[in-house]
Amino acid sequence: MKIQHPYLMFLGDAPDQLAAKTASGIVHWRRDWCLGQFQLPACKADLGLPEMTIAGALAAGCRTLVIGVANRGGVIPDAWIPTMVDALEGGMDIAAGLHQRVADIGDVAKAADTNGRQLFDVRHPTRSFNVGSGERRPGKRLLTVGTDCSVGKMYTALAIDQALQAENVKSDFRATGQTGIFIAGDGVSVDAVVSDFISGATEWLTPANDPDHWDLVEGQGSLFHPSYAGVTMGLVHGAQPDALVVCHEPTRTHMRGLPHQPLPDIQTCIDGHLAAARLTNPDAVCVGVAVNSSGLASDEERRRCLTDIAAQTGLPAVDPVIDGVAAIVTKLT
Amino acid sequence: MKIQHPYLMFLGDAPDQLAAKTASGIVHWRRDWCLGQFQLPACKADLGLPEMTIAGALAAGCRTLVIGVANRGGVIPDAWIPTMVDALEGGMDIAAGLHQRVADIGDVAKAADTNGRQLFDVRHPTRSFNVGSGERRPGKRLLTVGTDCSVGKMYTALAIDQALQAENVKSDFRATGQTGIFIAGDGVSVDAVVSDFISGATEWLTPANDPDHWDLVEGQGSLFHPSYAGVTMGLVHGAQPDALVVCHEPTRTHMRGLPHQPLPDIQTCIDGHLAAARLTNPDAVCVGVAVNSSGLASDEERRRCLTDIAAQTGLPAVDPVIDGVAAIVTKLT
Repeated sequence: MKIQHPYLMFLGDAPDQLAAKTASGIVHWRRDWCLGQFQLPACKADLGLPEMTIAGALAAGCRTLVIGVANRGGVIPDAWIPTMVDALEGGMDIAAGLHQRVADIGDVAKAADTNGRQLFDVRHPTRSFNVGSGERRPGKRLLTVGTDCSVGKMYTALAIDQALQAENVKSDFRATGQTGIFIAGDGVSVDAVVSDFISGATEWLTPANDPDHWDLVEGQGSLFHPSYAGVTMGLVHGAQPDALVVCHEPTRTHMRGLPHQPLPDIQTCIDGHLAAARLTNPDAVCVGVAVNSSGLASDEERRRCLTDIAAQTGLPAVDPVIDGVAAIVTKLT
Repeated sequence: MKIQHPYLMFLGDAPDQLAAKTASGIVHWRRDWCLGQFQLPACKADLGLPEMTIAGALAAGCRTLVIGVANRGGVIPDAWIPTMVDALEGGMDIAAGLHQRVADIGDVAKAADTNGRQLFDVRHPTRSFNVGSGERRPGKRLLTVGTDCSVGKMYTALAIDQALQAENVKSDFRATGQTGIFIAGDGVSVDAVVSDFISGATEWLTPANDPDHWDLVEGQGSLFHPSYAGVTMGLVHGAQPDALVVCHEPTRTHMRGLPHQPLPDIQTCIDGHLAAARLTNPDAVCVGVAVNSSGLASDEERRRCLTDIAAQTGLPAVDPVIDGVAAIVTKLT
């Protein structure tokens, strides 16, 4: 069950641009799926899309109202509900990336039911999975891993997917988090899966494929992050990656959210993730380092950082946003 | 909320002794909590306890009906329900380790509600957890890990707990699976926790304690089992163990349930689990190897196996069932 595009992007009363981070990511990677945006009067976020009413969006062909905005206090404001009900009554589905499920809102659930529409709460898995088997399956897979959380794993996987498609290599981006799921149209929010089934859910997400097909699997967390390493471990085993790309943010002074926890150095991070990957794919190799250099002050500092990492690891080191990922993609084809 | 003992052990219509494996484990470790057993006519399992009716169990002081028996096809037979309702009406709680929740059976839920009794479905976490922080906390912790699943991790942790208590060392067994939870009276079935919260649930289960207090934490899975390594990883990080004991079954030819997956050698298993443990406790050490030697043919073979492992690893190697765990406990006190 894929989320159908084109999308109308719902911004609600987002207090600032950061609250619309998920929506911004969707527009960046799927601009042609996003026909318009809908703001409530207090909204302070702007995606640069045409303003549309629900009626206008329906006329333009929008099929899903996408709620890619953080809500205050984790609760969906009553003020959002009439717009959602209008969209459902007009024939759109709703896809939401909130902690609270839109399917749990009585009026929204009722309108979806009455009008035969779908509600996608992308943070919440709606199917069950088998436990992972670790059995080899055909097709090639690349998994982005990282020295920490939020260092560019989704961006890097999407950039490599785009570059492969530009070379007519068969590929699919495989989403494991909410923003990625909106961008792919489907996927599994792996950190919300019951822990017995992490690797099984990942196997389901990245099934057997043509021998020359690449899955670009969005990584989560880090084996070196004490909060989330279990998720990462299951993801590594389930993806059974042929190739890893390590993502890194060079200005971090500690693991995200944990002031007491130091970052691993890059080589330790590569070695740790490769050792885990080789349990289910003995041929796994690391093919590059993706550096989010946006926190570095000067172009010279950025250059030196990449040169140092490349020298230390013997791998291509790029900032995907600035340099692209050609140096990494070369190693796949 | 602890499960209250004494227990009446419900065996239902268990088709053989193996179906009552959980119940047997409870009786082995908590014989004095188990006052009697209740069998339906077709029952083929026997715990060697006095037969008791519900009325007899109530008169003897039983406070909980424990359903520690595997059910056919994962569904609770209608034939079990009247006994459960009788127990609740008489004033007992029910604790069950089934996949199906007893709380989902209408008549049982209603009887519990009417009579103000508790239903414990020990496979299903009923509380939410924070994500793990990885912050150091006082108290000492030992975690049993393994080359595979089902190699004696619960038994070993319980045996060490018992040995420490015999020496008047403050200690608690911390249960992470269903049988362990019946034995401890509480705990968390970690493989049923949402994957984002594995390490957080384990931190909750093994909280700050006196500096000379030991938590003996029941391990799950193995970092080398492709199905469950994510659970193990979160458990290792959350427990932040000072000491690991590696459990091993020397006759296994492959990882449990996965004919294609070889076992790690013991030193690789020690090194892998120690590397993971040191992320949240840099002082973690491995203090021994617990070998389930029940599959070895002769006492000579058993001796040779233990001697070889001790020589290879430089650690005490014992079969806890035959040799006890004194050689390991010596390293803790």
